[in-house]
Amino acid sequence: MRRYANSTSFKRSNCAVACTLDLIGDKWTLLIIRDMFFGKTRYKEFQDSEEGIPTNILTNRLRKLESAGLVAKSPYQKNPVRYEYRLTEAGRSLGPILKSIINWAGEYIPGVRRPKASQTRTTG
Amino acid sequence: MRRYANSTSFKRSNCAVACTLDLIGDKWTLLIIRDMFFGKTRYKEFQDSEEGIPTNILTNRLRKLESAGLVAKSPYQKNPVRYEYRLTEAGRSLGPILKSIINWAGEYIPGVRRPKASQTRTTG
Repeated sequence: MRRYANSTSFKRSNCAVACTLDLIGDKWTLLIIRDMFFGKTRYKEFQDSEEGIPTNILTNRLRKLESAGLVAKSPYQKNPVRYEYRLTEAGRSLGPILKSIINWAGEYIPGVRRPKASQTRTTG
Repeated sequence: MRRYANSTSFKRSNCAVACTLDLIGDKWTLLIIRDMFFGKTRYKEFQDSEEGIPTNILTNRLRKLESAGLVAKSPYQKNPVRYEYRLTEAGRSLGPILKSIINWAGEYIPGVRRPKASQTRTTG
């Protein structure tokens, strides 16, 4: 079983819900994870999502997700070096959480749309 | 189909994930909902949960959940009036989200425990 990296101490309690919220309980993290699920890998692509994530929050969340082992980055360009970000196995296993959220919203929030895969990148 | 109350305008986008996070995307809201699922109904009980929710956040989240139609309050005492808070149908339908979070944590965060029902209240 693959477990995520920094898990030796609990921030608020050892409750499964509290520990998960310590990692992904905010307005932005699951939007980045949504974007990765639907094909986005690059900083600029996350930035371009319609919710308009602030740069400092995006940088912070990518770092946090990486250090938690939910996202791995790898360089796709040198000078300057730029990275692609992809979900790890632990990150992909957040899929059922995302799915349950999408299903709930579809039932209880009129007019929402289900997220879709982004267009295939033509360069890079 | 029961829909939650204030849903005519979207805060960030009409994406199902973003809209749900606008409601419950923070470190505390799902802990209150967890507590309600597991039998707690009173302000003091939510306050006593081991995560130590700050009073102002608890008040704010209960109000937000009520105005979103996820929680309903009813008085259980007069002079001074005190309220019990319970999940509505829309609130209870958050169950699968909570469950997927608990399952994920059980798999990927070593040492977490699944939340349990609180003891049955002996007074009131």
